[in-house]
Amino acid sequence: MGSVSSCSYDTRTAVLTNRQAVRIAWGDCDAAGIVYFPRYFEWFDNGTHALFDKAGLSFAAMTHLYPGVAIPIVTTRANFILPSTYGDEVAIDTTIVRWGRTSFDVQHRLLRGEELAVECFETRVWTVRNSEKALEGQAVPAEVIERFRADN
Amino acid sequence: MGSVSSCSYDTRTAVLTNRQAVRIAWGDCDAAGIVYFPRYFEWFDNGTHALFDKAGLSFAAMTHLYPGVAIPIVTTRANFILPSTYGDEVAIDTTIVRWGRTSFDVQHRLLRGEELAVECFETRVWTVRNSEKALEGQAVPAEVIERFRADN
Amino acid sequence: MGSVSSCSYDTRTAVLTNRQAVRIAWGDCDAAGIVYFPRYFEWFDNGTHALFDKAGLSFAAMTHLYPGVAIPIVTTRANFILPSTYGDEVAIDTTIVRWGRTSFDVQHRLLRGEELAVECFETRVWTVRNSEKALEGQAVPAEVIERFRADN
Amino acid sequence: MGSVSSCSYDTRTAVLTNRQAVRIAWGDCDAAGIVYFPRYFEWFDNGTHALFDKAGLSFAAMTHLYPGVAIPIVTTRANFILPSTYGDEVAIDTTIVRWGRTSFDVQHRLLRGEELAVECFETRVWTVRNSEKALEGQAVPAEVIERFRADN
Repeated sequence: MGSVSSCSYDTRTAVLTNRQAVRIAWGDCDAAGIVYFPRYFEWFDNGTHALFDKAGLSFAAMTHLYPGVAIPIVTTRANFILPSTYGDEVAIDTTIVRWGRTSFDVQHRLLRGEELAVECFETRVWTVRNSEKALEGQAVPAEVIERFRADN
Repeated sequence: MGSVSSCSYDTRTAVLTNRQAVRIAWGDCDAAGIVYFPRYFEWFDNGTHALFDKAGLSFAAMTHLYPGVAIPIVTTRANFILPSTYGDEVAIDTTIVRWGRTSFDVQHRLLRGEELAVECFETRVWTVRNSEKALEGQAVPAEVIERFRADN
Repeated sequence: MGSVSSCSYDTRTAVLTNRQAVRIAWGDCDAAGIVYFPRYFEWFDNGTHALFDKAGLSFAAMTHLYPGVAIPIVTTRANFILPSTYGDEVAIDTTIVRWGRTSFDVQHRLLRGEELAVECFETRVWTVRNSEKALEGQAVPAEVIERFRADN
Repeated sequence: MGSVSSCSYDTRTAVLTNRQAVRIAWGDCDAAGIVYFPRYFEWFDNGTHALFDKAGLSFAAMTHLYPGVAIPIVTTRANFILPSTYGDEVAIDTTIVRWGRTSFDVQHRLLRGEELAVECFETRVWTVRNSEKALEGQAVPAEVIERFRADN
């Protein structure tokens, strides 16, 4: 599977999604009584890891299959649309919406019922530790991308 | 001072900046030994609060001068350029780079010596709690903007 | 029900317990790859809140039934017996093991399978905000204690 | 210096202390507007690390001098006496109050001006990774203990 086709298939219908339920805890909220926004990024990071798990690429599996691999985040942006507060039950849907040659974009949608409350996009790079112990961007293996199809 | 002139003066040379020294703690790092990225947002949020303090707008002063005011974050984006690790001493420069009518953009630059390691922009809205207890965007008072000139 | 009898019944068999499942996240771990210990206290605090929820005393219910009530923690102690790491699935059992007149002790047991990995005891006080806006310790209402019997 | 004399000298007057200034940040507080207690443990952990730094035992120095060493926490207990809130400036004094053969006790005192607001004791063990990659308690080297005398 080439990167062209992987980029062009409809990500809205065909890709693997991880749904994470979060119950807002007392300590997630700030003195205004709403979620302290850095917390969202913890849950989004958890979402990316959980999505890889679901694709059969747990940390242990990743390390076994691709020694020295890491997927550092290089950029993130988030829109905070609706606040959440202590005791709220929300869901976070995480999916990969773009595969580049060495990078990929992850989308996180935090939902309050049907409403989108926070939306986040992050770009990560597929890197492998080289002989000089530096992380080096490399082409994402086609079989990795394949694992994120929904029918896996 | 009207909002037009406040928007057009050169923010690069003339505006108030807060410099925050951060020594990376053991607990700021993840299992890869580098700063767990949600932590950056905690420091950036601290930077915005510290900048307002420096402008004479501590939380107490804000609440006294502008009852019911809040400056919620509506969007943020960050670029992670260089990682930092336990024991590193970094500096975070925070400044307001744009004043809109009801919103403003804050820039955070995390520096390792002379090098830019993380860059973040956030947009916040000047809101006041109305009689229905809802937060309502309002025009940023001109005297607030004036406080963020560097010669204050 | 008097406080004497409430103190003396066998807490091991008769009291309400909350079981919380926690999957250790990447960001829960420090640079040594094991859970950064302050995190445990977040989960234990969540456990206490969840136990009160389970007893029908959600934050909203508490505030409704006992205006101005709060249950601040006054002391905590924990023993870290076995470390946990990224991806581990653990369970935290939370129960109230002692009712005093104005205070009570909560026990948290973090289990890895059958093994006790972390044990924590916290003492909290039943306080009500008085007319001077200060928190004042008061006798725990008997009907509150009653709610934490297991057969509720 | 033998371990007997190191244990018996008066720790109250003679030992190295680290003072850490903390300004309570917005995100350190919970929905009740006071410090969310797990945060205290982050600062206390930072205090222990800073004390070792001050004794000339930074993480890098430790690892160089004592390959495979770690000082995991095995127990902690804290008393929360006075709350702190956003904007408060507090100080945390950290010192080692007991040296055992393989373990030692660290005391943290969080002060609001002259008043003790939070007090914490933690016990840590001097461990070295053995050939089976397990952490093994070992006698604390006498020259390590010596470094925590105040006249260093």
